[in-house]
Amino acid sequence: MSDSLVRLSAILAEVTDLSRAAALLEWDQETYMPPGGVAQRSDQLSTLLRLSHVRFTADEVGHLLSTLEDETSGQPFDSYEASLVRVTRRDYEQERKLPPDLVAEAARAGSAARPLWEKARREADFKIFAPALEKNVELNRQIADALGYAERPYDALLDRNEPGLTTDQLETIFAELKRAIVPLVADIARHADAVDDRVLYRGFDPAAQLRYALDLVAKLGYDLERGRQDISTHPFSTSFGPGDVRITTRVSRDFFNECLFGSIHESGHAMYNQGIGDDIDRTPLWGGASPGVHESQSRLWENLVGRR
Amino acid sequence: MSDSLVRLSAILAEVTDLSRAAALLEWDQETYMPPGGVAQRSDQLSTLLRLSHVRFTADEVGHLLSTLEDETSGQPFDSYEASLVRVTRRDYEQERKLPPDLVAEAARAGSAARPLWEKARREADFKIFAPALEKNVELNRQIADALGYAERPYDALLDRNEPGLTTDQLETIFAELKRAIVPLVADIARHADAVDDRVLYRGFDPAAQLRYALDLVAKLGYDLERGRQDISTHPFSTSFGPGDVRITTRVSRDFFNECLFGSIHESGHAMYNQGIGDDIDRTPLWGGASPGVHESQSRLWENLVGRR
Repeated sequence: MSDSLVRLSAILAEVTDLSRAAALLEWDQETYMPPGGVAQRSDQLSTLLRLSHVRFTADEVGHLLSTLEDETSGQPFDSYEASLVRVTRRDYEQERKLPPDLVAEAARAGSAARPLWEKARREADFKIFAPALEKNVELNRQIADALGYAERPYDALLDRNEPGLTTDQLETIFAELKRAIVPLVADIARHADAVDDRVLYRGFDPAAQLRYALDLVAKLGYDLERGRQDISTHPFSTSFGPGDVRITTRVSRDFFNECLFGSIHESGHAMYNQGIGDDIDRTPLWGGASPGVHESQSRLWENLVGRR
Repeated sequence: MSDSLVRLSAILAEVTDLSRAAALLEWDQETYMPPGGVAQRSDQLSTLLRLSHVRFTADEVGHLLSTLEDETSGQPFDSYEASLVRVTRRDYEQERKLPPDLVAEAARAGSAARPLWEKARREADFKIFAPALEKNVELNRQIADALGYAERPYDALLDRNEPGLTTDQLETIFAELKRAIVPLVADIARHADAVDDRVLYRGFDPAAQLRYALDLVAKLGYDLERGRQDISTHPFSTSFGPGDVRITTRVSRDFFNECLFGSIHESGHAMYNQGIGDDIDRTPLWGGASPGVHESQSRLWENLVGRR
């Protein structure tokens, strides 16, 4: 390993640690944090994500990347070093365009919006959440403007997550899906009585459902030595490193599918992360290729394995 | 507020956020973290506490303190500004003596030792924990050497927590307590049969004990809107800000006192923190005067209220 690679790796490790600490703060906010904690949690997330951003976008990182681009120019596309330099450069160029204050403000606004969204959902009253959503949309518009885009603002946001995909392409995909799915759903609705699904609504003890879901995902391959299951308003999966990849689920006494398929879906995300090699840990290469690829794994387990 | 005070407050807020994020990572390690998470958790704590230290010990903080010492020289001892400057200066001078690598290494060693201590405790086998304890003692000796001391290494460590107290003074206090307590305990042991305490060992449902302990500490004044109770190997209280002050407890089916008095004790610490004014939040003034003063509050509730 060259000196430049050692130095870059040390910085990327710190940046990863900060963003993983932020991810734990977010997990805690959605699972166990008492209601009174939200103001300070917003402060803390704002501070951690600003520092992570500032550390990552330092001029030094740009210089190290330039040196390493020369050093790795002859290496195969998917070699460790060439991949690390390429992916880090991509993230670096995007992050450099964002002012630290905007990053900090977006982190704060996201955290502050969460309890309002939960309350609005519980009380089925969108008005409670609307101002916080507006604020978050406005900040994401500012992020899109800062990143820049050729056609439409969402191109900038989409490209951060699915490199190279445009809003137009996405709309083409969705239009195609719609042509097949809309008649399919209508057809299913016409034959709603063909299958007796009352068993799913019979009512099952929530604690037993949670245990059953966890047993089942463990049998599918989700490693509980490196994971755990908790309850949140909306299920998600999150990682604090290869040794700690968690899932959350939710449970309804009156609808069996909620807990089980939520858990299977999230364990699909989690198994993807648990399967990533330790050798790329604490770098931008760890964590998965993109949300789209991630969703291919969660849907594979939920639909092709779980629902058959 | 002067410009210097505004600037110092912003830095102290960031430092506080980093150390509170670290406190949440520690809480999580003791309550919910899966076993596989320890290596990355040690990395994360090491990174957060190093950054917090580096941020706090920057030359800029020293310059700001000098300016503010002039500005506040005429103010009453217990005014907000004089107190902030005085306490921050004290912490600053101590922290400046510690190399960042030592701070990071101590954070890592503390986190890495925890699962070994838990295993040693569970299996009643000190050998499992001994090497990690030795490592932590060695690092604390290095910290004592870096801080400096007149008489004994422990003076340096003690002074960090109980400003001005020396090991000699502490030994005098303990010797005095010993003269009274040793005969008292012997006397109690001689009359062990005088009170029938079998009811405490009769066996009670752990879940019911946990609910009862939490109900009771809420009635004592522990605010559950800004707190919660979880289970850990050894009970503790921890704060992530005025809005989120948590306790942990442990529970034994066969010994009633364990859970209830553990919870009351920790709620004493927590109520102290919940009672601190928001106006000194995100500064070194928040959190309590010292572990000794903190213990006076936890013991007050546990022994003078709880056991009577």
